[in-house]
Amino acid sequence: MSEPPPLEHIPQEPGKGMCNGMDTKHKEDLELAAVYVSDAQHNRNIFFDTEPTAVRLYLLYNHWLLGVLLYFFILVNLLLAVVEQPALVYLPIWACMLVELCCLSVFSGRLVHYAKVIPRDKFWKDPKNICVLIILLLTLVDMIIYGALKATDNYAVRWSRVLRPLLLVNFTEGRQLRRAFRSIRNALPQILSVFLLFIFSILIFSLMALKLFGKRGLKTNDGRPYFTNFLEVVFDLYVLVTTANSPDIMMPAYNASSFFAVFFIIFILINTYIFMSVFLAVVYNNYKKYLKEEVRQLVRTKRHKMVRAFAILQERHEGWEEPVVSHTSWNQLVRLVQSDLSHAHRELLWSVADHHNQGFIGKLAFVQLADLLNIQVIAVKSRPHPLQRWSPALYLSTPSRWLCRAVKHRVFVMIYDVIILVNAVFIGLDEEDPLIGNSEWFFLSLYLLEILLKLYAVEPRAFYSRHNFWNWFDTIIIVSALVATIINTAMTSVGGYSSRQILDIVFTLRVLRLIRVVDSIKRFRVILNTLIKIGPTMLTFAQLIIVVYYIFAMVGMELFHGKLQFFDSESPGKSSCGNPALQDSSFAKMNYCKNNFNNVVSSFILLVELTVVNHGFTAVTHPSARIFFVLFHIIVVIIIINIFVAFVLEAFFVEYTLEKSLLITSLEKKIQELGVAQEQTEPSNLVDAMETTDNDLRTEETTTRLMFKISSTRYRTVDSLLQRMFEADLDPEDFAGEDDPEEPSNLNFSNPVFSSI
Amino acid sequence: MSEPPPLEHIPQEPGKGMCNGMDTKHKEDLELAAVYVSDAQHNRNIFFDTEPTAVRLYLLYNHWLLGVLLYFFILVNLLLAVVEQPALVYLPIWACMLVELCCLSVFSGRLVHYAKVIPRDKFWKDPKNICVLIILLLTLVDMIIYGALKATDNYAVRWSRVLRPLLLVNFTEGRQLRRAFRSIRNALPQILSVFLLFIFSILIFSLMALKLFGKRGLKTNDGRPYFTNFLEVVFDLYVLVTTANSPDIMMPAYNASSFFAVFFIIFILINTYIFMSVFLAVVYNNYKKYLKEEVRQLVRTKRHKMVRAFAILQERHEGWEEPVVSHTSWNQLVRLVQSDLSHAHRELLWSVADHHNQGFIGKLAFVQLADLLNIQVIAVKSRPHPLQRWSPALYLSTPSRWLCRAVKHRVFVMIYDVIILVNAVFIGLDEEDPLIGNSEWFFLSLYLLEILLKLYAVEPRAFYSRHNFWNWFDTIIIVSALVATIINTAMTSVGGYSSRQILDIVFTLRVLRLIRVVDSIKRFRVILNTLIKIGPTMLTFAQLIIVVYYIFAMVGMELFHGKLQFFDSESPGKSSCGNPALQDSSFAKMNYCKNNFNNVVSSFILLVELTVVNHGFTAVTHPSARIFFVLFHIIVVIIIINIFVAFVLEAFFVEYTLEKSLLITSLEKKIQELGVAQEQTEPSNLVDAMETTDNDLRTEETTTRLMFKISSTRYRTVDSLLQRMFEADLDPEDFAGEDDPEEPSNLNFSNPVFSSI
Repeated sequence: MSEPPPLEHIPQEPGKGMCNGMDTKHKEDLELAAVYVSDAQHNRNIFFDTEPTAVRLYLLYNHWLLGVLLYFFILVNLLLAVVEQPALVYLPIWACMLVELCCLSVFSGRLVHYAKVIPRDKFWKDPKNICVLIILLLTLVDMIIYGALKATDNYAVRWSRVLRPLLLVNFTEGRQLRRAFRSIRNALPQILSVFLLFIFSILIFSLMALKLFGKRGLKTNDGRPYFTNFLEVVFDLYVLVTTANSPDIMMPAYNASSFFAVFFIIFILINTYIFMSVFLAVVYNNYKKYLKEEVRQLVRTKRHKMVRAFAILQERHEGWEEPVVSHTSWNQLVRLVQSDLSHAHRELLWSVADHHNQGFIGKLAFVQLADLLNIQVIAVKSRPHPLQRWSPALYLSTPSRWLCRAVKHRVFVMIYDVIILVNAVFIGLDEEDPLIGNSEWFFLSLYLLEILLKLYAVEPRAFYSRHNFWNWFDTIIIVSALVATIINTAMTSVGGYSSRQILDIVFTLRVLRLIRVVDSIKRFRVILNTLIKIGPTMLTFAQLIIVVYYIFAMVGMELFHGKLQFFDSESPGKSSCGNPALQDSSFAKMNYCKNNFNNVVSSFILLVELTVVNHGFTAVTHPSARIFFVLFHIIVVIIIINIFVAFVLEAFFVEYTLEKSLLITSLEKKIQELGVAQEQTEPSNLVDAMETTDNDLRTEETTTRLMFKISSTRYRTVDSLLQRMFEADLDPEDFAGEDDPEEPSNLNFSNPVFSSI
Repeated sequence: MSEPPPLEHIPQEPGKGMCNGMDTKHKEDLELAAVYVSDAQHNRNIFFDTEPTAVRLYLLYNHWLLGVLLYFFILVNLLLAVVEQPALVYLPIWACMLVELCCLSVFSGRLVHYAKVIPRDKFWKDPKNICVLIILLLTLVDMIIYGALKATDNYAVRWSRVLRPLLLVNFTEGRQLRRAFRSIRNALPQILSVFLLFIFSILIFSLMALKLFGKRGLKTNDGRPYFTNFLEVVFDLYVLVTTANSPDIMMPAYNASSFFAVFFIIFILINTYIFMSVFLAVVYNNYKKYLKEEVRQLVRTKRHKMVRAFAILQERHEGWEEPVVSHTSWNQLVRLVQSDLSHAHRELLWSVADHHNQGFIGKLAFVQLADLLNIQVIAVKSRPHPLQRWSPALYLSTPSRWLCRAVKHRVFVMIYDVIILVNAVFIGLDEEDPLIGNSEWFFLSLYLLEILLKLYAVEPRAFYSRHNFWNWFDTIIIVSALVATIINTAMTSVGGYSSRQILDIVFTLRVLRLIRVVDSIKRFRVILNTLIKIGPTMLTFAQLIIVVYYIFAMVGMELFHGKLQFFDSESPGKSSCGNPALQDSSFAKMNYCKNNFNNVVSSFILLVELTVVNHGFTAVTHPSARIFFVLFHIIVVIIIINIFVAFVLEAFFVEYTLEKSLLITSLEKKIQELGVAQEQTEPSNLVDAMETTDNDLRTEETTTRLMFKISSTRYRTVDSLLQRMFEADLDPEDFAGEDDPEEPSNLNFSNPVFSSI
């Protein structure tokens, strides 16, 4: 779309409504406005065509099912590594190829769909589309070459597999991931400065180590000469920074003279403690800076879209200078944007927007709509318990009321906490003792009783409402444990044989049950809630890690696969991992043979190990293979893990310091005013009280009515969390280029593209 | 002092001066005011008596020599561990006792001196004095018991040695350290919450590991049963959090089934990555919060003291409502406070304070004095080169001028950078090649030439002024290298024998020379300067670490000394470290025997190793010895290292974001106005350009005149750095209780005491 939609002035009496005379034009306008609002709400930055047909195609493009489908096929595409050579589960080449072709066609389809939605020139200007296209073409070329070579029994490498995770980044849906990559790329120059200084420090120390220790004829523990080759020294000291070979690398020098320990202590102080902290500081600072800029851009774009939606729906109101949007249009719009919103909820939002009850709202109030829709309002229907409807006399009798009160009492929670602790002791004891084994039935029935009692006291639909995480958790864990225990007992009593797998499940479920205790201790709940809050954003990091891991796994498998073998039983190859170079090496002695690149699963596990402790064993290949390990350490540990730590830090600081946003406050006030607030059972603290059982046990009213509560514990989108993190630095009146929507530079609010891949 | 000094109104013509009629009373007043200002400048919080004799005693108490003496004896007292049983260097017990008694008497003397300086009731109310007293008494008691037991050949423990490092904290001079401990103590409740949750998580995972792996009959690498004892599992998993036993602890399970890797990956993700980040976040946040409160208190106290000094010196000026301080009094005061300040410097400060050139200043301007004195102003005397005075014609001739310009040119610096790099390559090569060996002479003479050329171009006293770190560094390194190389060559040529020790020194000096390159690359200099800036504060952390290490070393030596032996050569005990329990253990095989608690030096080195990687080997003693290792890890790694990281983070953020303080800006403006500014050669960047050679080569004027430059790279005191860190949150007009100095609660500005030790 290269020009904004024309401004329309529909002269109409406000309040009279337009439902009757709704013509096609109006319907299309409404649809377009709804798309703008929806895009603003979900922070989509797609430059779709405003033609009605294109808008409908765009709506289809945004359908969640198509998104899920795309991600499913990306997953399938990534998982192909499991069945491809070197395979974990062997599948013939033609089958792999077929699946991959299927994936490629889905991706192409998605791309074509996208091309239809946005104007052609925009499509070709966007590097991420070009990226996807090139990846698809390269993959196709690679498949043909590979197939041809394999058919003629030649050696072939599936090099295009490295490109697969990049699809995750370059499809429009990978916004978060793209943003993370972009922030990393922008922070790189600063990180590089520190990194060069760090490398310089390592080189200086290595030179000194070479001069100090090289001529003394010391030997390492496995008899090799100690610190005689400069490159070996550099690598050893680099590994020492990761603390992986401490104190082994120091021992020969330390055994020769205690004074040499000073060298290593200074080395560790400077490189491990100071430099790593400086890395964290620089990564943190720069990542935050660029992320803040991105979020500012995001908010500006969002407001810009809302202004456009406003321009479509605006009308003139007599005696009013500025154009406004009437309640009717607003209602139709919101119904289109979010059809699952209840009428009461919509009215609540309107009353927040239309503060003075005028029946219409101005631009500023309208623009808030996207943020209003993103505030998670929990609507609790307070209706009578089914038992009450079935037999009011019985349910409302004194003993029954007493029971309900007892279940809702603190002591009830405490009793069950004690039961859980006793259960923990029983779990720890040996389950072969028949008494202990049978106690499991006792505990299971106690837990079942708890759930039943709670269901008696609380309306079941309220108990199992979407936000009651712990109720769901409890029920699922208990019921599965019950089923698994029954199956296990049945199997034992029938065949005298108990399956290890089922026992594993039973034990895991039993132990998981203990987590419940955490929820009833308030100081823990605060920490846990913050962790749950930042959970969705951690998924972005998970994707980031997966992209990097996948690339390294693919390269690693090509480079190192088959170098080692893992032998299950005592076989002659066990002491050397099947490779003569490792005969009697400490690697083989420590039983590390399964740490290899022989298939994609062990590659991933090995990469996790390398993230934790990077030894960089390279005895079986050329020493230059160390480059692989050092590179991995730099990218994953120094950059990504630091960004992860920085993110957790920032999120916690925000929780500790930030107050509720203005919008949430005004919404809360409205809820209070309207008298539809659900009682707050706990003082709203550092982190607002989560939707625990306690909260929901209070809704004791007997009439069906809606109650609202703002859930500030979860954000509907990751962007909302980010926006909240940088809220203090955002100007609420900042409408980027709103006065001059014709200006192309302002219009170009497409997501800054990720061009470097 | 329980009451403030009486306000005096000396009716005198301003400008007339009081030098002639300076009586004893006035001198005493001036001295008292000077003490207040000096206390404010150095943030001392001692409640001295205002009697003239007490003030003089107090001045003596603050003398730097006495402070150095005290620290020297604290050091001697701490170092006694080297010669005491178990000794590194054996000294008879009576000699140790004698030295310790000597230390104790010095400490007592200091304490008595302190008691004379402050009012008696204040002395007894201050827990840190009580602490010192108790430590001294306990040490004495312990010495008597120990001496008696040893004299009768009984087993005896010198338990009071644990108390020694606490003296470092509890003497008045340990302000920084006390503040750090206090901040840690205040942050503890929050840290505890996270810690409990963390322990809960470890327990849950341990229980699950016990249930999943305990019954499978797996064996660890050294043949012990795998995950069968709950406490062992807890300890192993705790060590896994520190990543010390990764991936060893995982291998048996992973070798049994790849699926079990999932358990360990989740464990590491939650406990190592998430919980450790949360620890950092909580420690960071709380430590910062309390430190900020402390700094606010500090600034308030400082201002309060300045107000008192003002009250002593204030006079009435006609036509002026408020009391003022005249230029004369101010001058006398500053001369008393800091006698080494030049007249020009003093005038500069006065012109900043007396902005409107009135000849007197009010309270607000006066209060700034303490901060003004803390701004490090570098006065450069621009005087002619000695050669110029000796032979102006020669020195100012065209070739000579050309040479001076050449030396100051960028190319000159670059040529020497290249020379250093070439030298680095030569150092890396084998020095037994005669060509390479002789090249050292060539490089040495090149470096000497560089220094001589620079001395020719720059006035020597300016070149070696106090702030030219790199010039000093160069000269010292080069001259020592020259001396060492000459000695080495002489020894080789005379006896054909070259001492390894001297060679070590020569090599070290050669390599250190290479560091010079860093200074000429600007992007590195910025990072380096920040590190140098926070250097003094890192010393506080060093003291903190030493206090903790010392206590753990003392306890560790009592518990574990003699359990292992280190054998230099191949002796029968080598394979077991002299302890049958370790026969053929991996500990002995890895040559770890020197990692023991046999003397204080190896204890400290071992504790450093434990800080880096905490294995917690406890094979030779009871498993409960693990408590020692876990406790050490919690205190040192989780708390202190995190605070250290937090501090580095904060310091870097401040450097990246903070601007110059108002006071520095106004001082700079004054310097510019007066035309005594030294040219700024580089744009004042993130961190202002350091005093490098480049800067000082510019002072080409031929007349002797003073030039000023503000050194913002170093802070005169640690407190100034802290104050700058939290400057944004401090109210410049916040005079705590200035209106009511009689109010005792406001007067009580003694340092909040560290009472828990």
